[in-house]
Amino acid sequence: MQPEFLFDFGSPNAYLAHLIIPAIEKRTGARFKYVPILLGGVFRLTNNKSPVESFAGIKNKLEFQRAEMQRFIKRHRITAFKMNPFFPVNTLQLMRGAVAAELEGVFEPYVDAMFRYMWAEARKMDDPEVIRASLNEAGLPADTLLHRIQEDGVKQRLLQTTQQAVERGVFGSPSFFVGKELFFGKDQLRDVEEEIMQQERAA
Amino acid sequence: MQPEFLFDFGSPNAYLAHLIIPAIEKRTGARFKYVPILLGGVFRLTNNKSPVESFAGIKNKLEFQRAEMQRFIKRHRITAFKMNPFFPVNTLQLMRGAVAAELEGVFEPYVDAMFRYMWAEARKMDDPEVIRASLNEAGLPADTLLHRIQEDGVKQRLLQTTQQAVERGVFGSPSFFVGKELFFGKDQLRDVEEEIMQQERAA
Repeated sequence: MQPEFLFDFGSPNAYLAHLIIPAIEKRTGARFKYVPILLGGVFRLTNNKSPVESFAGIKNKLEFQRAEMQRFIKRHRITAFKMNPFFPVNTLQLMRGAVAAELEGVFEPYVDAMFRYMWAEARKMDDPEVIRASLNEAGLPADTLLHRIQEDGVKQRLLQTTQQAVERGVFGSPSFFVGKELFFGKDQLRDVEEEIMQQERAA
Repeated sequence: MQPEFLFDFGSPNAYLAHLIIPAIEKRTGARFKYVPILLGGVFRLTNNKSPVESFAGIKNKLEFQRAEMQRFIKRHRITAFKMNPFFPVNTLQLMRGAVAAELEGVFEPYVDAMFRYMWAEARKMDDPEVIRASLNEAGLPADTLLHRIQEDGVKQRLLQTTQQAVERGVFGSPSFFVGKELFFGKDQLRDVEEEIMQQERAA
């Protein structure tokens, strides 16, 4: 049983999901596979937009989303969250970096560190100097990773996971697959957990 | 503790919520107050649109919504649901009827019957003849209700509940209030239930 978590560092809700996933793994025994996708690419391929853009002209909707995010943070006693003042941050380099980190065998510490710098420390993570300093601070091989994100293979791989995600039904972030079942948004994490339990029982 | 359920018969998700509410009432001991609002009015006042319109141009999104609705139906073992082929149905008369039914002391049977005719029997509930026949079939005072929905007081009352809903943060249907906390969508019914429990404990 390996549920999938399709993420882009640019999505605050993906970060919040990332914080909750360890507890779900503990309760279910399942281990999530993290799949880096480029949200901008998903939006282009599906003609979708970020909530901030889609809901901009709609009274009450963004206010509700903000209140709901605060409730989620409170419910899960999350202390390490700060809205990023540079939002929206272009995450192309960061996401290619996730692919490179996978090839270099440092995927997990990379993902954890980048999420933290984006949404707990609210850094400007599309600035090459900030990326380099952050990689160094996290003890990750900055030179190697920044070199590898220029590789065609790395660029193609990110394009591929993004296209495949859209072919499987994805339209935004965070998205989750439990088997073939797609779930969308941090608010569906309980459904994700129930589906894992159910598929485990059925197996 | 009286949570509120703001509904329009035109929303299939409001109907699905209506089917689940009795179980939540049983588990929590709370009793929901049903508040009729005109969804078309909410959309005009907030510049919002129905999901079908908003998501029309977005790849994968409506397919996801349909799949999620089917999962909800399966999870709650709902058998009495049929997508209404006349959707979207203009619910102005039906919603005014809910206000009139409240004045006539037949609110609960009216709401239950109209939801059923819309979404279990998939009738064309904006056709005056279908409305009359349905009221008769349900044993409701058709003449009185159809007369009263012409009254200015009834029209004004629906306008008022709709405007007040928007002033309190509503932008769509189904919406729920637990105290001042707003929840949106059938997918938040578990959050509604938890909030009821929490406010009950705090009281």
